[in-house]
Amino acid sequence: MNSANSISQGMTNGFDRGRLDTLPVELRDKVERRDRVLGPGYRLFYDVPVEVVRGSGTYLYDSAGTEYLDAYNNVPCVGHAHPRIVDAVHRQMQLVNTNTRYVQDLVVNYAEDLLSTFPDELGNVTFTSTGSEANDLALRVSRKVTGSEGIIVTANAYHGLTAAVAACSPSLGINSPLGPHVRTIPPPDPRMSPSNFPTYFATEVHRAIAELRRHGYGLSAFLADSIFSSDGIFADPQGILAPVIDAVHAAGGLYIADEVQPGFGRTGAQWWGFQRHGITPDIVTVGKPMGNGLPIAAAVFKPHLLTDFGRDIRYFNTFGGNSVSIAAAHEVLRVIRDEELIINAEKVGTILRDGITQITSGDPRFTDIRGAGLFIGVEMGSTEHPGSPDPDTATSLVNRLRDRRVLISASGRHGNVLKIRPPMAFRSADAERLLTQFELVVRSEP
Amino acid sequence: MNSANSISQGMTNGFDRGRLDTLPVELRDKVERRDRVLGPGYRLFYDVPVEVVRGSGTYLYDSAGTEYLDAYNNVPCVGHAHPRIVDAVHRQMQLVNTNTRYVQDLVVNYAEDLLSTFPDELGNVTFTSTGSEANDLALRVSRKVTGSEGIIVTANAYHGLTAAVAACSPSLGINSPLGPHVRTIPPPDPRMSPSNFPTYFATEVHRAIAELRRHGYGLSAFLADSIFSSDGIFADPQGILAPVIDAVHAAGGLYIADEVQPGFGRTGAQWWGFQRHGITPDIVTVGKPMGNGLPIAAAVFKPHLLTDFGRDIRYFNTFGGNSVSIAAAHEVLRVIRDEELIINAEKVGTILRDGITQITSGDPRFTDIRGAGLFIGVEMGSTEHPGSPDPDTATSLVNRLRDRRVLISASGRHGNVLKIRPPMAFRSADAERLLTQFELVVRSEP
Repeated sequence: MNSANSISQGMTNGFDRGRLDTLPVELRDKVERRDRVLGPGYRLFYDVPVEVVRGSGTYLYDSAGTEYLDAYNNVPCVGHAHPRIVDAVHRQMQLVNTNTRYVQDLVVNYAEDLLSTFPDELGNVTFTSTGSEANDLALRVSRKVTGSEGIIVTANAYHGLTAAVAACSPSLGINSPLGPHVRTIPPPDPRMSPSNFPTYFATEVHRAIAELRRHGYGLSAFLADSIFSSDGIFADPQGILAPVIDAVHAAGGLYIADEVQPGFGRTGAQWWGFQRHGITPDIVTVGKPMGNGLPIAAAVFKPHLLTDFGRDIRYFNTFGGNSVSIAAAHEVLRVIRDEELIINAEKVGTILRDGITQITSGDPRFTDIRGAGLFIGVEMGSTEHPGSPDPDTATSLVNRLRDRRVLISASGRHGNVLKIRPPMAFRSADAERLLTQFELVVRSEP
Repeated sequence: MNSANSISQGMTNGFDRGRLDTLPVELRDKVERRDRVLGPGYRLFYDVPVEVVRGSGTYLYDSAGTEYLDAYNNVPCVGHAHPRIVDAVHRQMQLVNTNTRYVQDLVVNYAEDLLSTFPDELGNVTFTSTGSEANDLALRVSRKVTGSEGIIVTANAYHGLTAAVAACSPSLGINSPLGPHVRTIPPPDPRMSPSNFPTYFATEVHRAIAELRRHGYGLSAFLADSIFSSDGIFADPQGILAPVIDAVHAAGGLYIADEVQPGFGRTGAQWWGFQRHGITPDIVTVGKPMGNGLPIAAAVFKPHLLTDFGRDIRYFNTFGGNSVSIAAAHEVLRVIRDEELIINAEKVGTILRDGITQITSGDPRFTDIRGAGLFIGVEMGSTEHPGSPDPDTATSLVNRLRDRRVLISASGRHGNVLKIRPPMAFRSADAERLLTQFELVVRSEP
């Protein structure tokens, strides 16, 4: 296996169509039939793709009944097919599913409850259908408010798939051009400046602002995933984003916290990833786990930012805030509270990180273990060329775990960071099962 | 009432916040509470907004049990809370709701069935969550294929809300700037050139292509709603789009048919609006009614257009093609067939158009009645200034119908075209009820 393969067709842990003939015949037929209608834009995970026909809690099952432990999917945050979400959706489906141009208490009730998880300054919410749409809207509002276009993101950021946010998503690869108004900074890897990392990181932001100015672009926004997921998962040190937001504001820009991946308590101890850094962003975007799989996302604003945009620009998202997605989302919020899933994320995340640390102790292939709550990155480095990433071993581990029916993936610019991001309903027993299998694949030769 | 009010806050038939004090106190409280959390970007329909808590078939109900006949909503195409859609969603929710990076037969089964409704040349489908995302993707693919940026749309087109498609949506109003690469042509109103309209319309397209070239833009795409909904609903004469697609192809561009509003059989006689004009677009985007309210949309492509884009650009839409939205969408397709809703659209649409024609016969305020199937436009003109639009009377009729518990809206650049676009499950009895109320408001003074 080589790196071209490990980041297959521009995607970490992507199935390589060149390997079609190696698949069992029934699976190969399914993949070929799929390719015929969905075309070449679609990707599958793993060297041997996984079929899914059923899920329950933290488990997924294929058509043969094979059980997989899901340690990757953040969307079904309260667990696959959670009965309370199933019931909430069923109740609302029987009532009505309509849009926000009619008065509906359930939308306002949810909006109020969602906003109660945010700092008071963040007082308005606009519902969209996807995180991409939320980020796209956040950029439109930033531009309207600041009158400027310049955007700063991290070096391997991913913020979505519309034309505007794809232009701010370097992780899409060299064939997907960044906009002329976009500049990147390195992800916040504290090893870059061990003695004084916060200052180092803020300096990078200042440099990017100056670079934009030199090309005639004022700063519209700094847009950052609060846990830097696609950059390889960087959660610490806490507080590093405080000097950044100050720099952004001093330059007249807005700080947009993309909480689509870290949000809803995944990082443990609090609802939102930005809270770990003690900042209050100007705009926060949320998505994926919001409806446990029903499409719903949102942008949360300091209200004054919407004064001009709200007056001048009509923004109607047909499916944004539809009654059924709202019903699902509200029940997700209640289940997170009732089942204490934020505390669980902290507790089980610690078990996982401690276990992985113990298993990999003294193994030079593992160069860093990091993360917060149930969002864990395990970085792999070359033993032959110390300091170089090792995506091949990472991909091999991901696929060997898949063969042992434990689903994780990889992340980072080089695809060398194991990404462990299970449903927040992941329990201690699940963690033990993952660690047992992890130890087996780490200790055995590929 | 004046025109500033009838197109309230940049939106036809929008509730004017200045009228808050005129509302019944309970409704006013609900609207105020809503405004506090959702902010100024949100709009409501009607002078007295409608509350919705329940729906069934073609009826909506508020919390007091008041019944409204829904002659406006196209999203719940097979009817509100249709039991077969409710059941399909419930079954899939209990199984699993996951994404397209796993192998799932149900996604491929639906893709094949959906594609069977299209001409053979349109052989690949990419699922998105919203029509905006589908149009945004279509534009990204066009740009990749053609290497050009220029876009042509109609004068009051609406194609969605992402930054890229909002820049091609003049109906958003003067505060929402069009892109420098966008040119508009008049909507296809055959009265512009009664003797030879097809030639006139194609000439406008040629002129826009030349205009783009003069500014250094090659033609990327002609993007058009096949029934020109927001332009005021122009369905005829059939065949007018054939010379347009030839002109677009001759200039190296792609023809994108936006079927988000006219699609899924609404125009009667066939599945897609472009089929009325005997053309095969390069890309077709579909959305709103696709899942009867569950968020799902798609772009359908001639497969060769995806060769480069599919290879170079990773396009993963987390919620696009999620199992539950797919289950809903597949059941919608089956219900449209089983309940013969396309035939119904033709039949009931004809009853409506004939009835409206009869009621308004000899009334000079009604300057045109047009449309196809269950998508009807009734144009209102000034009697004082013949040739001028009359949005005020249109808005008044919309609101007086609302007071009589029949929901329609208005459309067109001037907001002077009554827009009647009910669920496709609208039956003859519903049409009779609408016509009875319509006659009452037309015959009485405001």
